[in-house]
Amino acid sequence: MSGRFIIDVDGQRWFKEEVTPEIGHALRIDRTLYEGEIDHQHLIVFENQRFGRLFALEGFVQISTADEFIYHEMLVHVPFFAHGRAKRVLIIGGGDGGAIREVLRHRTVEQVTLVEIEKAVVDFSKEWFPSLSAGAFDDPRLDLRIADGAAFVKEDQEPYDVILVDSTDPVGPGKVLFTEEFYRDCYARLGDEGIMVTQCGLPFLQAPELKTAYENQSASFAAPRFYTIAVPAYSGGLMALGFARKGGEDPSPADLAARIEKADLGTFKVYSAKTHQGAFMGPAYIDTILKTGQFG
Amino acid sequence: MSGRFIIDVDGQRWFKEEVTPEIGHALRIDRTLYEGEIDHQHLIVFENQRFGRLFALEGFVQISTADEFIYHEMLVHVPFFAHGRAKRVLIIGGGDGGAIREVLRHRTVEQVTLVEIEKAVVDFSKEWFPSLSAGAFDDPRLDLRIADGAAFVKEDQEPYDVILVDSTDPVGPGKVLFTEEFYRDCYARLGDEGIMVTQCGLPFLQAPELKTAYENQSASFAAPRFYTIAVPAYSGGLMALGFARKGGEDPSPADLAARIEKADLGTFKVYSAKTHQGAFMGPAYIDTILKTGQFG
Repeated sequence: MSGRFIIDVDGQRWFKEEVTPEIGHALRIDRTLYEGEIDHQHLIVFENQRFGRLFALEGFVQISTADEFIYHEMLVHVPFFAHGRAKRVLIIGGGDGGAIREVLRHRTVEQVTLVEIEKAVVDFSKEWFPSLSAGAFDDPRLDLRIADGAAFVKEDQEPYDVILVDSTDPVGPGKVLFTEEFYRDCYARLGDEGIMVTQCGLPFLQAPELKTAYENQSASFAAPRFYTIAVPAYSGGLMALGFARKGGEDPSPADLAARIEKADLGTFKVYSAKTHQGAFMGPAYIDTILKTGQFG
Repeated sequence: MSGRFIIDVDGQRWFKEEVTPEIGHALRIDRTLYEGEIDHQHLIVFENQRFGRLFALEGFVQISTADEFIYHEMLVHVPFFAHGRAKRVLIIGGGDGGAIREVLRHRTVEQVTLVEIEKAVVDFSKEWFPSLSAGAFDDPRLDLRIADGAAFVKEDQEPYDVILVDSTDPVGPGKVLFTEEFYRDCYARLGDEGIMVTQCGLPFLQAPELKTAYENQSASFAAPRFYTIAVPAYSGGLMALGFARKGGEDPSPADLAARIEKADLGTFKVYSAKTHQGAFMGPAYIDTILKTGQFG
């Protein structure tokens, strides 16, 4: 049986992802664990020998257990160690639990507020991807809110040291999380030395959106920057993460290494002081995109 | 009409790449420029809106004009500026002309020897991908040899400042270019401060092969390292490039920047002093792979 998202090739089932109208990605389905619909959106949980267990929604891979550590470690530890003493954290999105898992490794964290718009994401992840949250949903420091993230940052009055915008791509329903207004509200919620990090999509495929995110962050933040990571499950090159400081300064390489050692969080699989710094020293075409909106 | 490498989806032709047995990649064929066979291998030149003009051999993308600058700039300028005064250069493979294009931008280069095993690659690239070589095949400093690269480094007696192994992946026919013997022969061909750079595939998909390349390089070179780049056309995360010095030392960040400024090569699209250094500060999992042969 072939369909919009599942195709049959010589008796094997494959999950088909339309990355863009001209680029496709396909993953062999070695085992289907769950397939259904929620709000008329197709969802599937399956296993693939390379990527481990995957979750795809309406034809787009959301989670793969083999490489999610890259995104979650780099999303969380870069702003944490750049800040140095983050106690209060806000995460917009991230209902899969991967970001809170990494945040709560920092013993200095007193409270993390997770604002997920869809409760089903949390329930679904707990059931099918327990390794993502790894118990973090039961941590007493977690304040879980099922609410609209953009509305939350507008109404809330609490100050945060770190805000993580763990959103979907800068196209489609997550678009509100890339607006000047949303970034301004995040700026207002940050403490004096606060840092906001935002998922900003793939520069090769979403160059105009990256420029827009930069411009919209620049309306509030003095000098937003971008660091890059490479996630194998996302076809199309590097992913950019926005890094915007309200105040404060980045640590020197020696201070960064000392902070990491002192925190004593155990083993990282991708993050290190070296990786942290290198991620900000990415390809020259990022600067070109911020000026022109064009890749290359 | 659907086949092994070309499929028909709702009246559109797509090129289908089997990245691994469990991962597929597909590119819409917006225009076919050439399709045929050489030595019983399927080859196609086509256009895709995102990737520009592409060349695929036996189902694997070899060139895409939209992003080839990433691989070629980083393959060439990293060892060149790390060396500082490279005059004699050897390239194994690279018959598409992209590497010599970047090498010959360095006015200090006196001779570049390109050893390509298949003359047809050169002819084909000149005809269909003239932007790759951009006239470099006519440069009087080029010494073009149609020969087996592994045999060439064994017999040749000339010393080189930089050797670039611009090979296919560490699986299949290019495998001889990843052996201890081949690296030993390259070591012998290098001058005292010579540097060898080698294409080493995608760590996420070829972790055991990366470990083997490291071990085989370590048999001759004191401390081979790897730097990483992200090429959108190669699905599966970062690509690793081996970097092995016979002698000499890397420049300080200030010296590196001064060398680049002094060389005055015009605009780079991906390379910069910052990118050069950042490429060596890649993910912590590279070190894990070199120890264990396993990703993650």
